[in-house]
Amino acid sequence: MPELRKDPVVGRWVIISTERSRRPTNFGPAQLPAAPGFCPFCPGNEDKTPPEVYAVRPGGGPANSGGWTVRVVPNKFPALQIEGALDRRGEGLYDKMNGIGAHEVVIETPEHDRDLADLPVEHIQSVLDAYRERLVDLHKDKRLRYVLIFKNHGGPAGATLEHTHTQLIALPIIPKQMQEELEGARRYYELKERCVFCDIVAQETASDNGRRVVSTTDRFIAIAPYAPRFPFETWILPRRHDASFHQVEGGPDEMRELAGILKDTLQRLNLALERPPFNFVIHTSPVSDGDLEYYHWHLEIMPKLTRVAGFEIGSGFYINPTPPEDAAQYLRELSIEV
Amino acid sequence: MPELRKDPVVGRWVIISTERSRRPTNFGPAQLPAAPGFCPFCPGNEDKTPPEVYAVRPGGGPANSGGWTVRVVPNKFPALQIEGALDRRGEGLYDKMNGIGAHEVVIETPEHDRDLADLPVEHIQSVLDAYRERLVDLHKDKRLRYVLIFKNHGGPAGATLEHTHTQLIALPIIPKQMQEELEGARRYYELKERCVFCDIVAQETASDNGRRVVSTTDRFIAIAPYAPRFPFETWILPRRHDASFHQVEGGPDEMRELAGILKDTLQRLNLALERPPFNFVIHTSPVSDGDLEYYHWHLEIMPKLTRVAGFEIGSGFYINPTPPEDAAQYLRELSIEV
Repeated sequence: MPELRKDPVVGRWVIISTERSRRPTNFGPAQLPAAPGFCPFCPGNEDKTPPEVYAVRPGGGPANSGGWTVRVVPNKFPALQIEGALDRRGEGLYDKMNGIGAHEVVIETPEHDRDLADLPVEHIQSVLDAYRERLVDLHKDKRLRYVLIFKNHGGPAGATLEHTHTQLIALPIIPKQMQEELEGARRYYELKERCVFCDIVAQETASDNGRRVVSTTDRFIAIAPYAPRFPFETWILPRRHDASFHQVEGGPDEMRELAGILKDTLQRLNLALERPPFNFVIHTSPVSDGDLEYYHWHLEIMPKLTRVAGFEIGSGFYINPTPPEDAAQYLRELSIEV
Repeated sequence: MPELRKDPVVGRWVIISTERSRRPTNFGPAQLPAAPGFCPFCPGNEDKTPPEVYAVRPGGGPANSGGWTVRVVPNKFPALQIEGALDRRGEGLYDKMNGIGAHEVVIETPEHDRDLADLPVEHIQSVLDAYRERLVDLHKDKRLRYVLIFKNHGGPAGATLEHTHTQLIALPIIPKQMQEELEGARRYYELKERCVFCDIVAQETASDNGRRVVSTTDRFIAIAPYAPRFPFETWILPRRHDASFHQVEGGPDEMRELAGILKDTLQRLNLALERPPFNFVIHTSPVSDGDLEYYHWHLEIMPKLTRVAGFEIGSGFYINPTPPEDAAQYLRELSIEV
């Protein structure tokens, strides 16, 4: 059973993933699929993954058969286990709990060689729908505190299988960065009685500004944030206040618009940076904290252009060689056909 | 002039380094030295670096001449500038200041092909002395808040020049991770009236424990921390309470002992992990906060064995496949001759 452990000074939880334990000799390049050319995410190999928890099959058909366009399965090597009761313990001054949670994979398309950015907008919308459905389902589990949805695209960004996919990790704790965002946003709200993200949207779209805007739609805005850690870091935010990704008020129209601006943004990054490896993370409200006045869901995209030195991870201090105003202007001026 | 900018939600400061600004086409592998085979850190090239700020010349000789064993120079492409007054400003809801600070390089040895771990203990001691001297000097500058000393060893860890060196960045702000450590340690002290790091040392060295101990000396302990982010992450802590690296009470004897346990630890990691890329960061008290009761300086070493996925940086949530008890046992059982 994996174990969650808390750093006693800064309060950061980590998973010590004993199931995946690796000896020193075992730290070569990430594990490749068992046989060259074999991909467990491709159609026809549905029995090589754990049984699916969600799928879109436009033509119908039984679970774990072919004919799907989007498919969600538990990770075959999960960092957390879904069965069992949560058991919190101390160990002297340290705190730990057992590794209860979920670890799933959203297979975004049956086509092995297509990237998310290249799929039609309608297809991207059905990928976003899969995220939302899984969030709705996992938010019912009272043992869980946060559902983290993220994508590692390209080897340098941490992907170990090339068939395009998103990961979902449901946790009995709130990840440190999300906790800090929630606390920072709450402090701002207490001071101003306004959502800090709503204020960011207002300032970035003010008529005398727009220098960090990459693109806008009726309901969304893509910006280079004011203090980005990474060159070409780009955030997509809903313009209207909404705390939770899975409870967006606008329904399917809004999800379609989000699919459109996500495709547009990824294509701009692909064109500007020659299909860079990237990560994105959906920042949304914790489980059971649905309708927060002070929090505002958004999606953060981080192209992996520079090596992130350990000192940056070890100090939380980042040096970014590209001003966001330059990055936004460059991305904005590209001509994109979504 | 570079600019320091603060994220309005989580309060993280980043440097937007306009001097180093890079266009999208400019993100290939890190810059290599101008001419193949040329190294600005090698003896004979003293005039290819900015004038030195510190050097050890056992045989005497003028500044910026040869004959040195350790040499500290300003970074030729600094992320911060030392001249000017600190200017803090708002920009709507955002906060920024100009990029005042220092960015220096400690060239650890004149020999191009030697690593820190391979130098004699006395030589490592004089490298640590150089860190300390620069800390003492920079802590006199009232514009500064923190002096960050870190080492990127090996390309994957972020080093851009192979001649072994350490970097020093002096900042008008406290890096996020250090701020969190200071706050976490202060909270613990308020609750317990004890230093959390002293409690960690006590618990890790208790006679019924020792599972995470890599090695000990009279004054120091090397451990795999309880909740490590990375496989084989190793911390070196002084056993006795001491807030600041540059004010260690034990003087030269203590620095020699530290040099010994640092060499021993790096050699263990080299042997276990086949000379891995790694980073280390010295965690010490902020400028002008010398004698804190609640803080305890230490050194954190992070081997770079796995790719750090952007999601880990974006969420602050880490999955570590190697339990620290296993890592410590493995490192402890190696036979090392320092």
